[in-house]
Amino acid sequence: MVKMIMHGCNGAMGQVITALAAEDRDIEIVAGIDLYDCRDNGYPVFAALEDCNVQADVIVDFASAKAVDGLLSYGSVHQIPVVLCTTGLSEEQIKHVEEASEKTAILRSANMSLGVNLLMRLVQDAARVLAGAGFDIEIVEKHHNQKMDAPSGTALALADSINGAMDNQYSYIYDRSSRRQKRDGKEIGISAVRGGSIVGEHDVIFAGKDEVVTFSHRAYSKAIFAKGALEAAKFLAGKGPGRYTMADVIQF
Amino acid sequence: MVKMIMHGCNGAMGQVITALAAEDRDIEIVAGIDLYDCRDNGYPVFAALEDCNVQADVIVDFASAKAVDGLLSYGSVHQIPVVLCTTGLSEEQIKHVEEASEKTAILRSANMSLGVNLLMRLVQDAARVLAGAGFDIEIVEKHHNQKMDAPSGTALALADSINGAMDNQYSYIYDRSSRRQKRDGKEIGISAVRGGSIVGEHDVIFAGKDEVVTFSHRAYSKAIFAKGALEAAKFLAGKGPGRYTMADVIQF
Amino acid sequence: MVKMIMHGCNGAMGQVITALAAEDRDIEIVAGIDLYDCRDNGYPVFAALEDCNVQADVIVDFASAKAVDGLLSYGSVHQIPVVLCTTGLSEEQIKHVEEASEKTAILRSANMSLGVNLLMRLVQDAARVLAGAGFDIEIVEKHHNQKMDAPSGTALALADSINGAMDNQYSYIYDRSSRRQKRDGKEIGISAVRGGSIVGEHDVIFAGKDEVVTFSHRAYSKAIFAKGALEAAKFLAGKGPGRYTMADVIQF
Amino acid sequence: MVKMIMHGCNGAMGQVITALAAEDRDIEIVAGIDLYDCRDNGYPVFAALEDCNVQADVIVDFASAKAVDGLLSYGSVHQIPVVLCTTGLSEEQIKHVEEASEKTAILRSANMSLGVNLLMRLVQDAARVLAGAGFDIEIVEKHHNQKMDAPSGTALALADSINGAMDNQYSYIYDRSSRRQKRDGKEIGISAVRGGSIVGEHDVIFAGKDEVVTFSHRAYSKAIFAKGALEAAKFLAGKGPGRYTMADVIQF
Repeated sequence: MVKMIMHGCNGAMGQVITALAAEDRDIEIVAGIDLYDCRDNGYPVFAALEDCNVQADVIVDFASAKAVDGLLSYGSVHQIPVVLCTTGLSEEQIKHVEEASEKTAILRSANMSLGVNLLMRLVQDAARVLAGAGFDIEIVEKHHNQKMDAPSGTALALADSINGAMDNQYSYIYDRSSRRQKRDGKEIGISAVRGGSIVGEHDVIFAGKDEVVTFSHRAYSKAIFAKGALEAAKFLAGKGPGRYTMADVIQF
Repeated sequence: MVKMIMHGCNGAMGQVITALAAEDRDIEIVAGIDLYDCRDNGYPVFAALEDCNVQADVIVDFASAKAVDGLLSYGSVHQIPVVLCTTGLSEEQIKHVEEASEKTAILRSANMSLGVNLLMRLVQDAARVLAGAGFDIEIVEKHHNQKMDAPSGTALALADSINGAMDNQYSYIYDRSSRRQKRDGKEIGISAVRGGSIVGEHDVIFAGKDEVVTFSHRAYSKAIFAKGALEAAKFLAGKGPGRYTMADVIQF
Repeated sequence: MVKMIMHGCNGAMGQVITALAAEDRDIEIVAGIDLYDCRDNGYPVFAALEDCNVQADVIVDFASAKAVDGLLSYGSVHQIPVVLCTTGLSEEQIKHVEEASEKTAILRSANMSLGVNLLMRLVQDAARVLAGAGFDIEIVEKHHNQKMDAPSGTALALADSINGAMDNQYSYIYDRSSRRQKRDGKEIGISAVRGGSIVGEHDVIFAGKDEVVTFSHRAYSKAIFAKGALEAAKFLAGKGPGRYTMADVIQF
Repeated sequence: MVKMIMHGCNGAMGQVITALAAEDRDIEIVAGIDLYDCRDNGYPVFAALEDCNVQADVIVDFASAKAVDGLLSYGSVHQIPVVLCTTGLSEEQIKHVEEASEKTAILRSANMSLGVNLLMRLVQDAARVLAGAGFDIEIVEKHHNQKMDAPSGTALALADSINGAMDNQYSYIYDRSSRRQKRDGKEIGISAVRGGSIVGEHDVIFAGKDEVVTFSHRAYSKAIFAKGALEAAKFLAGKGPGRYTMADVIQF
């Protein structure tokens, strides 16, 4: 049973993780850290890490950028691995992450979802086999109508993952209406659909001669990042100093 | 049992229709017209319509543009309905179609597929109900990597069908990567995927708050145009003079 | 602007409807009814309908079965239309609904989702066109791993809707592994997939020769029933006495 | 450039392979073997392997079971690798395959499709990651209305592949309508859809908490077995004696 501290336990993600951990037999939250102790979490809550006198194997963080420095110092000094999920770190903080990772294990990833990170790996394997056999690669992503950017960061990350495995031979095409020509074999078409309240859907399509292989990911809520964070915590507990990502958690 | 003449019976589509008609209990090919009588069709084949002395209820045409004028004259004189599937008619020939339709029934459509024409109608009903309730509309089409144009004519026809039912309020968006803004409620996004040998796939997506309704059409071969032509022939037999489309065939 | 009373305003569904109505320009909640007045709803809340002195065009109900009798009496006396969403009514209460519908408009449906009720209608049209042309009909539904029954009530309702439009020619098949025979044209196969936390997905598949048309519905939360209730309320306001269903709301 | 002999070059699959090889820059058919030399293949055709005096790196076989023994003897004597695609071998012939594989490389597989064999491997990786994190596994397959058996052999092979990677913990469920109970975590549900002329579709679904990952394969014609056979031929050329399968061809 891995013992974890939930850093930012009373925020939205902290609460989702608390609920998920309660149903997980392999991990237990032994303490929470939050300025506001307003909820019945079933574990002691401290206002700051330095007040926390509970032994733990790993810290999971979903707090705020300004709490990151204290977190990294605490992790370094006590050599407790840290799953760092807070985003929007400054350049200086990213440097602090690097320094801390010489003292303890730090895991940080653009997307904490287990499913997306699994696909990042598997589409590389698929590309090596299928692109070599003449399959074309396309990505279709769907998100809600409030999203400003297109294509999604995850769609681009999936394309980059494939491209990285294929010697960066591919260029990305976002619009085919403005030209009249056949598809080039060395392009990845990326289409962005926007509508309603769709949380996030990604299809990576390998289309060959009379055969199509598709890898699909559907996210229905942000709870999937909580799930990924718990798996990351189980993985990181007991690991030595160094920088880790979700790709390390995905082990076959 | 409807009796039909297959005009252009030994071409690729004529042969597909011949095979389909042989399995259809409601229609029978009683004669074929083709310059080349090289196959065992199970019905008499004449080099030209004027040589044909067999009584029929309808003519189905999948020949060539240069044979259209003779076909229309024959249909007018004998008052036999004509399902006209040959494409690429000249302006003059289209005028000839109009004249002939004063004497006999002529059915002509951009796409002969039963499924696509059904969707043309149903997405109008869906738009009236769902667009009014705030659903966003998107279309994704997928075709093989040799297709030059994008989006497909059928995708545009589906969008036009919806737009026509909604007072033409919508504009079409083909690329979202070049701007950074939220989706407008009065746009229809149309995405074109290209790869492998995909014959033709169309998804019309109505995305609302926590609910998505999708109408999908998958074509696996051009045989679907043959099927549509046979249904059109059954419909047109016995009809009076006038111009018809596949939309008339789709009767609930 | 339709003025509505939210009966059961502080329950889960009442709150979802309150949030949705706040964003809807065509309807306004002018009063809520709930025993517990614990929330800031932005409208007055009364402990019982008889205490409510606010004029309204329609009542939407998501309360409990034991409050239904008072609701029906109030609707009858004041001749206010009622969208009755509470389920689990007794035989006696259903009789009470019938009596009340002689005095005022009552709308009641098995499933309040706009999308599902739209599909109920459209698959009938599709069946009339495609089944006649030899297409086979199959339904695949997917739900979370806690659901006890299979197939889902909505899958059966979709099948019944099709069957009703086709003179009840079809029988339903739930398992093909236990026999070794070709598919019969007069069967509807219904498959049930169970896994994870899937809220509810339904595909109605019409598979023909080289052509497949699919109608898909995806529900991402129970908010869709709230949305349907609001549309029903707008429809029912001003209607005369009688019994209505969501099918009446779906008007092309 | 790999030089191959096409054994059974004038059969249906032999012709598909001939067409595909003509477009492939990495492999060339230098001779064909067939009793009937009726077509213009662009390479010499011999009535039997022993008449063939053309040097080659590999033989691809899509002939008939009765020609297998001669093929294996020829491959053994001349130490030419053999991609053996003919099915329906007798026990004795399978023993002959084993003996021949001590002298030369023999590749034989239940399904020659590159895409299906790739999925066989990737779903194992996915199961190791996702099943451990509580995801449920389901398979949905779709085939034409003439197929007698259900579920498909490929669906069962996919399930077996997953189960093999997971210590055979899973049992398979084909029907959920006959019981009223929650899904067990250690089951794989397998649903079979039948309709129209669908060539073959397989979805392997991993459904977790608010997240679904799906691996889909769509086959549009039997040409995909030809494609797989060519890839197998390129792989096998130059390999030493031994038994190989398509899994060996799928190399990341």
